[in-house]
Amino acid sequence: VGMTERPATAVFDEATAVRPAGPGRYQVRPDERFALVAPGGITPPAVNGGVMVATMLRAVLDTSPHPHPVATSAHFLRLPQLEPAEVEVTWLKQGRTAATARAALIQDAQVALDVTVTTGRLPDDPGRAADGELTWTGHPPKLPPFEECVNLGPWRGTVGADGIAGYAAQVDLRMDPATTGWRHGEPSGIPEMRGYFSLREQRDPDAYLLAVAVDALPPVVFGLGAAGWAPTVELTWHMRAVPAPGPLVVAAQCRHVSGGWFDAEAEVWDAAGRLAAQGRQLARVGRSSKSARR
Amino acid sequence: VGMTERPATAVFDEATAVRPAGPGRYQVRPDERFALVAPGGITPPAVNGGVMVATMLRAVLDTSPHPHPVATSAHFLRLPQLEPAEVEVTWLKQGRTAATARAALIQDAQVALDVTVTTGRLPDDPGRAADGELTWTGHPPKLPPFEECVNLGPWRGTVGADGIAGYAAQVDLRMDPATTGWRHGEPSGIPEMRGYFSLREQRDPDAYLLAVAVDALPPVVFGLGAAGWAPTVELTWHMRAVPAPGPLVVAAQCRHVSGGWFDAEAEVWDAAGRLAAQGRQLARVGRSSKSARR
Repeated sequence: VGMTERPATAVFDEATAVRPAGPGRYQVRPDERFALVAPGGITPPAVNGGVMVATMLRAVLDTSPHPHPVATSAHFLRLPQLEPAEVEVTWLKQGRTAATARAALIQDAQVALDVTVTTGRLPDDPGRAADGELTWTGHPPKLPPFEECVNLGPWRGTVGADGIAGYAAQVDLRMDPATTGWRHGEPSGIPEMRGYFSLREQRDPDAYLLAVAVDALPPVVFGLGAAGWAPTVELTWHMRAVPAPGPLVVAAQCRHVSGGWFDAEAEVWDAAGRLAAQGRQLARVGRSSKSARR
Repeated sequence: VGMTERPATAVFDEATAVRPAGPGRYQVRPDERFALVAPGGITPPAVNGGVMVATMLRAVLDTSPHPHPVATSAHFLRLPQLEPAEVEVTWLKQGRTAATARAALIQDAQVALDVTVTTGRLPDDPGRAADGELTWTGHPPKLPPFEECVNLGPWRGTVGADGIAGYAAQVDLRMDPATTGWRHGEPSGIPEMRGYFSLREQRDPDAYLLAVAVDALPPVVFGLGAAGWAPTVELTWHMRAVPAPGPLVVAAQCRHVSGGWFDAEAEVWDAAGRLAAQGRQLARVGRSSKSARR
């Protein structure tokens, strides 16, 4: 339907597809094209958490009375395996302003990912507020121009025996150089990451891609010298605007690291300069951090 | 057990008590002593959301293998009524590092409040990190000294026909004067609130009181001239440290108001200067905002 040539179905849309399998039930399959490739290839590949949440949002929105997932809370329990799974959707309320559903990703009769979603309607044109409507927005993050940013390409933890693969091969990340010192052993000492995010394939952002964007950057604790996979325990994100076409700006920061737990707050701004999504997660510091630190 | 005289059971602990009623089931009763008193007394009183979440956390922790609610996501569906209700707890995973349960507050056979909780263990002494453990904390919020802050007492929306009552009569809020201009019709123009929070009765903070603290202050949009009750749609909070005795510092800010939705990020620091909790919520701008704005 577009003016530009592109495949009928984007890889991202294939990877997050859901197939109805009965009332409130959907067949899905975690897709290795969005897996994080573990160094050495020892552990089973873990599919990017945001991609799994996007998959579950498709199932929820399939029967939602409202179009936008305004609040999505996800608790990550078990690593989804690269085999068929089922999403179960249960509506708890369908109200005029908001509707809330629970969704569970079931694999081997266990919940791998537990999500609660409240849907609602965001303004069609956030630039035109209704008469007397209260509107306000904080300052956007400051990033260097796109062309001055670091094309992250394959980074630590994303390269297998066969080179770049999985998630890192699907996304285009251009990082603020101030947040990439960890790539050459000189972490900034500040747990923050900033960059431009888009898919490598041509596909405009929407709610599903925002679900990925809120956890799209390398872990903020890399800025403190940590290394290795930092598994998300819980991630909640709020959709605030329907994103305009173009690369998204993602800015993430951490406030506290203690006892092996750390937080990461992310803001996602669209190419039109609007705050499109906000996320916060609690995660575990990667197990290899200690030995990897200098 | 304390060195100071105080009642055997604090009002807060009575109001958040749960009584086992079968496997995974608990009887509770939303307590009017923590209700927000609506102006004019027309609508049924709404019990403070954090107090309801604290109640549900008691039910979850009753059978949790870990002591601390490190991540709590709450979706608010229906106003709990001041009558008996039931909390249903379902464990989805009980792992070595983390355990996750769903809990639902059921009233009239409907889910009023839906909560997912991941429990874990926080450090006994956050000041003493294990050898080689990664620790880091951002800057704390800046507040004037306690004695220079504004004793909020009864504020807009908390006073009924009989004077101060409910929630406002239970909590002691001392607000940074920079964030209280809305009290005399001069909102600061910035959606933020900062203050010291404790119960009026003598009771030290713990996980349950942190659940209240993350949404303890007046709505941040009061700083933009909004008024009236601003119902929380979703609130997720992370417990980051076991709080020290003494008043809590709460700092809340908003990033975006649009389409009737606004966010509020809150940090809770304990009297020892540690980040004890972080919360973020999505809420609705109060219905009376428009007419109340100047």
